[in-house]
Amino acid sequence: MKAEIISIGTEIILGSTLNTNTYYLTEKLTDAGIDVLFHTSVGDDSKILKDVINIGLDRTDLLIVTGGLGPTMDDITKEIVSETLGLEIELDNLMVNNIKKYFDESEESMPENNIKQAYKPIGSKFLINEIGTAPGIYIEWKGKTLILLPGPPKEMKLMFEKYVLPLINQDFIIKTKTINTIGIGESQLEIILKNIIEEKENPIIATYAKEGQIDIKIVAKDKNEEKIDILLNETVEQINNSIKEYIYSCEDETIEEVLFKKLKKENMKIAFCESCTGGLISSQFTKIPGASEVFDRGIVTYSNNSKMDELKVKKDTLSKYGAVSKETATEMATGILNKTGVDIALSTTGVAGPDGGTVSKPVGLVYIGIATKDNCFVIKCLFKGNRQSIQNKATKKAFSKLIKTIE
Amino acid sequence: MKAEIISIGTEIILGSTLNTNTYYLTEKLTDAGIDVLFHTSVGDDSKILKDVINIGLDRTDLLIVTGGLGPTMDDITKEIVSETLGLEIELDNLMVNNIKKYFDESEESMPENNIKQAYKPIGSKFLINEIGTAPGIYIEWKGKTLILLPGPPKEMKLMFEKYVLPLINQDFIIKTKTINTIGIGESQLEIILKNIIEEKENPIIATYAKEGQIDIKIVAKDKNEEKIDILLNETVEQINNSIKEYIYSCEDETIEEVLFKKLKKENMKIAFCESCTGGLISSQFTKIPGASEVFDRGIVTYSNNSKMDELKVKKDTLSKYGAVSKETATEMATGILNKTGVDIALSTTGVAGPDGGTVSKPVGLVYIGIATKDNCFVIKCLFKGNRQSIQNKATKKAFSKLIKTIE
Repeated sequence: MKAEIISIGTEIILGSTLNTNTYYLTEKLTDAGIDVLFHTSVGDDSKILKDVINIGLDRTDLLIVTGGLGPTMDDITKEIVSETLGLEIELDNLMVNNIKKYFDESEESMPENNIKQAYKPIGSKFLINEIGTAPGIYIEWKGKTLILLPGPPKEMKLMFEKYVLPLINQDFIIKTKTINTIGIGESQLEIILKNIIEEKENPIIATYAKEGQIDIKIVAKDKNEEKIDILLNETVEQINNSIKEYIYSCEDETIEEVLFKKLKKENMKIAFCESCTGGLISSQFTKIPGASEVFDRGIVTYSNNSKMDELKVKKDTLSKYGAVSKETATEMATGILNKTGVDIALSTTGVAGPDGGTVSKPVGLVYIGIATKDNCFVIKCLFKGNRQSIQNKATKKAFSKLIKTIE
Repeated sequence: MKAEIISIGTEIILGSTLNTNTYYLTEKLTDAGIDVLFHTSVGDDSKILKDVINIGLDRTDLLIVTGGLGPTMDDITKEIVSETLGLEIELDNLMVNNIKKYFDESEESMPENNIKQAYKPIGSKFLINEIGTAPGIYIEWKGKTLILLPGPPKEMKLMFEKYVLPLINQDFIIKTKTINTIGIGESQLEIILKNIIEEKENPIIATYAKEGQIDIKIVAKDKNEEKIDILLNETVEQINNSIKEYIYSCEDETIEEVLFKKLKKENMKIAFCESCTGGLISSQFTKIPGASEVFDRGIVTYSNNSKMDELKVKKDTLSKYGAVSKETATEMATGILNKTGVDIALSTTGVAGPDGGTVSKPVGLVYIGIATKDNCFVIKCLFKGNRQSIQNKATKKAFSKLIKTIE
């Protein structure tokens, strides 16, 4: 079944509201095996809305329309849909009572214009709104289905899950697996996976670039759930065999979550000292609930003084090699390891820009140091992008190197 | 000028990516005086894309298409747009060199399929991508304008602001002022500003809720720039008079930028010690280029040991009052002030959740301590929301209190 989601509302089309309704509905419909092919958003304009509904009826089987069911003059969805389909509207006395009851319970008097919400196109069904006054509407018309839902996300979601999903035919089950990779570009990844991607129609495989990492999404569709699981697992294994060294998770996790789990499993404690990443590594890591189980402390040593004070970096090292150097990164990592007694420690020092770059130490140059009780090593990286992007990429790279070191 | 934004990408239509590009573009185009009438999103399907472009050309003057400009087989936007408009595509040698240079600088070899990105429809212009390989494309065709932009939000935004905005015809001059507030809710703000908002047609005033703060956007439109400036300044002053105590900037700045400028102006140095915010305060602050001029260091003291080690918090204090207490926040702030010799120091300690809350110390309880050479005080806050939201709100509140203290 092909579907289109149409969102009505000037607040969306003015850019003052992020359209989370469409995002939510797409995910739910896709999970239910329905192909959402189009998203359309328009303001509260009757001519435009009419055109959009006609286009939608022409190209899909299921139209889900959100917004414009309220009691005000701006709310024209129901009226325009009825007009477009050539359906008269009728007053539903049961719904009048429902709406009155809603106001009685809130101990408010019902404004006159709320009566508007008790009208529906002849032949359609109301969908109950348990937490608001605007009911939804379900229409079957010439082999097509139209579902009108209220705009406020809470009302829309409750109505959708409780009353709409059971009404929609589910042709297929759909399941998704996501593989997370780091250290390889999107086009290089596609070259390696070209054969796997092309030979398969089900599951569908697609790559998605995020900052500093590429995700591979595998979507399988069938009527039989067992068959889907087999399809997915086979594909994950095939991909894993081709690009093992770049994969950090086959379970759609962030890289810091993977690091956290590994540290916890090995019963290891960690500490970070950061210069150019400025606390981003600590901050990302402590977003994980329970981070305190493995994280001892983080020190952002921005000034040279603080590097000497906190981490015992030698004055000589700073003057001879500079703060951005392999030598400083080494002393920072071993410095915090010795100070804290953790099992593994990380340091970063680099030029995040936009200023401060030189020919020998350009913007984007970052040294990442890792120290354990037996060993200390430093990797040199050159990242592209603006200040924030360099900080982000250095953070991902640092987590990835920590995981490899623990392994 | 009427515009439509078309987003291309299976990840959007599968519900795995929230469409923030459209949201961003709508806001920017509306600010530039362009009426965005339609949002459309579709997957990477050539037949569907062709239909959508034809519909768009039929109903608007400006089509902005995002996504599908990458080097992979899925990326079909440029090819389909060219085909739909009946334009041949040609290889641009300058762009071949640009892309090669990008890979040279990253010390990677250029994959064969990246060459695809150096093709453009005959008669169109490339838009430079400073932080990625996919250039944008600007096409004028039969009185209509088509602009193709890359899908990754950072690349798209930079390209849009730097290269697209100056190219778009503006019938009117439009200018925007944004006032940033903290410490007041959106509906309360609207009640206070109701009269000002309702009495004015130009400028338009609207409030936007962000995490932990509300922005007030004032948009004025006229053919005369002087008149616009007068309109804007009058309105800013009126709003400032009504809600002065909640405003931290009338210049659309982040709160950390305002803090940075104040510190710089007063020639003060700062240090942070964080527990529940886990490095977020340091990380947000060091996103500012040049932060090192005023920022000495940050310490994330997650464990009790690290609080004692690094900040000389007394063992007694921790056992008597607990890590989350006014007393610990005080000792943390004075501890880092004494250790570093900075002019002002900040501490945070709290329960970010989701676990670890008790009846007397619930999730969301955060103590923020501020120490200067003459004084130390602690404020107690109770924030709502999930872990990340509590960390974000505590960070904003901390910056806001620091600004007030310096003033």
